Amino acid sequence: MKETFSHFEVHDVRFPTSRTLVGSDAMNPGPDYSAAYVVVRTSAGDAGHGFVFTIGRGNEVAVSAVRAVEPLVKGLEVGEVFSDMGGFARLLTHDSPLHWLGPDKGVVHMALGAVVNAVWDLLARRRGLPLWKLLADMSPSEVADLVDFRYLGDTLPHAEAVEILERAQVGKDQREQQLLAQGYPAYTTSVGWLGYPDERVLALASKAVSAGFRHLKLKVGAGPERDAHRVKLVRDLVGPEVLLSVDANQAWEVPEAVENVKQLAAHGLYWVEEPTSPDDIAGHLAIAKAVAPVLVATGEHVANRVVFKQLLASGAVGVCQIDACRVAGVNENVAILLLATKFGVPVCPHAGGVGLSEVVQHLSMFDYLAVSASMDRRWAEYVDHLHEHFVVPARVEQGRYLAPQEPGSGAEMLASSVSTYTFPDGPAWRDAP
Amino acid sequence: MKETFSHFEVHDVRFPTSRTLVGSDAMNPGPDYSAAYVVVRTSAGDAGHGFVFTIGRGNEVAVSAVRAVEPLVKGLEVGEVFSDMGGFARLLTHDSPLHWLGPDKGVVHMALGAVVNAVWDLLARRRGLPLWKLLADMSPSEVADLVDFRYLGDTLPHAEAVEILERAQVGKDQREQQLLAQGYPAYTTSVGWLGYPDERVLALASKAVSAGFRHLKLKVGAGPERDAHRVKLVRDLVGPEVLLSVDANQAWEVPEAVENVKQLAAHGLYWVEEPTSPDDIAGHLAIAKAVAPVLVATGEHVANRVVFKQLLASGAVGVCQIDACRVAGVNENVAILLLATKFGVPVCPHAGGVGLSEVVQHLSMFDYLAVSASMDRRWAEYVDHLHEHFVVPARVEQGRYLAPQEPGSGAEMLASSVSTYTFPDGPAWRDAP
Repeated sequence: MKETFSHFEVHDVRFPTSRTLVGSDAMNPGPDYSAAYVVVRTSAGDAGHGFVFTIGRGNEVAVSAVRAVEPLVKGLEVGEVFSDMGGFARLLTHDSPLHWLGPDKGVVHMALGAVVNAVWDLLARRRGLPLWKLLADMSPSEVADLVDFRYLGDTLPHAEAVEILERAQVGKDQREQQLLAQGYPAYTTSVGWLGYPDERVLALASKAVSAGFRHLKLKVGAGPERDAHRVKLVRDLVGPEVLLSVDANQAWEVPEAVENVKQLAAHGLYWVEEPTSPDDIAGHLAIAKAVAPVLVATGEHVANRVVFKQLLASGAVGVCQIDACRVAGVNENVAILLLATKFGVPVCPHAGGVGLSEVVQHLSMFDYLAVSASMDRRWAEYVDHLHEHFVVPARVEQGRYLAPQEPGSGAEMLASSVSTYTFPDGPAWRDAP
Repeated sequence: MKETFSHFEVHDVRFPTSRTLVGSDAMNPGPDYSAAYVVVRTSAGDAGHGFVFTIGRGNEVAVSAVRAVEPLVKGLEVGEVFSDMGGFARLLTHDSPLHWLGPDKGVVHMALGAVVNAVWDLLARRRGLPLWKLLADMSPSEVADLVDFRYLGDTLPHAEAVEILERAQVGKDQREQQLLAQGYPAYTTSVGWLGYPDERVLALASKAVSAGFRHLKLKVGAGPERDAHRVKLVRDLVGPEVLLSVDANQAWEVPEAVENVKQLAAHGLYWVEEPTSPDDIAGHLAIAKAVAPVLVATGEHVANRVVFKQLLASGAVGVCQIDACRVAGVNENVAILLLATKFGVPVCPHAGGVGLSEVVQHLSMFDYLAVSASMDRRWAEYVDHLHEHFVVPARVEQGRYLAPQEPGSGAEMLASSVSTYTFPDGPAWRDAP
């Protein structure tokens, strides 16, 4: 009997983070970090894990979207899927009725990503490899075949993708040794959630620098005076050597962003993140020109490779922030890594959420080994909460992610966490005051 | 007791259109035109109607998204909502957890639109007016207050919106008389669904011209030779006076679109619709420059006002195709009408679906009376199926929409149609072979 995909288990998991203001920002004052968590099961009893990250209410819509993907996967032969992961991802993202519900965006696109990621998790486990190593060991043409080149025909032909990947083969083994020895650079956002008072920000910034971080990020968008106050406070504490970036979480109009960033730049800024709508490519370009040398960063809410293509090709972003769970999974992120490399833009992943660090670190490590081949001006985001719910929690030491050795993608949650935090019937919610 | 919004009734309604290939195109070979249909009820027993349009499988995700909006609306006082419809729409679209699931895009954004539209339907009924008349009778500042100007700060300040609307006050009464006497121009897509054989296309094109249509649209994307064959066939039949447009439904790469349109242009094309990804603003601009004087049209899958802003401001589109049910309802469409008028781009709505004609005609008529103040180079799409399921079906005579006189937005479905086509338990599905 051939092994097939048998069914999905989908869980509505929500962590009550709003009770402590962890994760608070200019647009999201009280998020409950949540996941529409999927376990993709096979007829042999094996499983891969993936999730859509949300901030609470509405997580059930993501659960419904993941369930809508199940009929496309159920009954497929596992071995055939593993032998053509590009074809598998395209089977999902090209499905006509689901495509209509985006297209290539929103909850349904994220759900397709969760399922694609879950199958990658299973494949990596089968090979006994962490996802970063599985990807990095594939040949350039195997990697290129993962990509959906639809709508990239004017920018990144298949042959050029292969060329980029072939260039990165040089020195790959040495880079792997370096990665294993030294890890991958991280920056931290944990110091400056918007809801935190000054004393807490100062204590956390001090702690972060002691812990080895050389790049900190603060939330802004609380008003120009309050923002300037917070940035100056931290700059005065950490001194000129530590990089400081700010994140407006889409709070500003384009002219407002220009004005505010110019003010804040007096305190020394590295990047300004999500200054305005993630759909406003022309707006990001206008901001980038006006606030240089401060870089414009975005990506955690960028819907797909087509929008990234334009942000990168036009010079609208100087920092490309992929997210493991916003686009259609590993495959679409491989396309985005290739586009970023083509246009010479460093990838600094978003990981402010639950489980995002665990998964996206694999993509940064793969990028270092086999795509951009560089760690220069690259840091993966790190926030220091909720890692305890994962079977293989992200490990950061001295401001660097340690390369995971365990097989898989990092997405698997502890069964006890899933049951405790299932909404609304898990004890964390059922017994809440 | 004050009247409040009490609850939503949400129905998963699907019409088995794939059985006849009605609606088939290059990306969607067998759509079942469907609606996540919402009845927003008040404590006084009154109701407004709205829907998300989908093409079948996955409609249940849209149903789940509409249900996720209910907690935001339940308990609001109806009179207060009616007195600030702009504030009401922003309450929904700015909700932080639901915004995260887009942002401003995909199934959740469409669901917010369905609810906004349903409340407009109720308001129009209360006033005893068709939606077009309700909107057209509002003052310029009242209309401007409907708009969410977030992310339009660099392009359409509130004051400029008011100016545009004030200019359109001149001659409004005469235009209303003309609208009532002559209706609003339509074009038809019914002649050329991609799955139809040649004889059927010819018979339908002939019938459409006899019925008074002077603008026909064919689906393309079946391959250059087949496309050219179909376009030539219809051109030869209808002669040079009838306008002919084509719709690729996102099937092409940018360079491929340029090449194909240049070939087809030999047969005389007015616009090429959805040549590539609706997210590719730069791609549309490149195509527009290359295929002029053929115009580039898009919009039915454009996620929101921010993307429309860029398509319009850059000159990427020469025809702006709003959709009643893709963006966040009447309010966001008012923003898009204003943007189109600012940049001098005619609005020609998308209506290929179930119920889209019924609702979007109101927006075109409002545009004519109070925004663009013009019918020049403007046609609303018409497809001649599924109208029988609506309480107030769209009426087209001599190639023109007749202005509806009945109160409301046109969205209300017959109760018998809702129950017959409810998926999967209605008789149309339960009893299907």
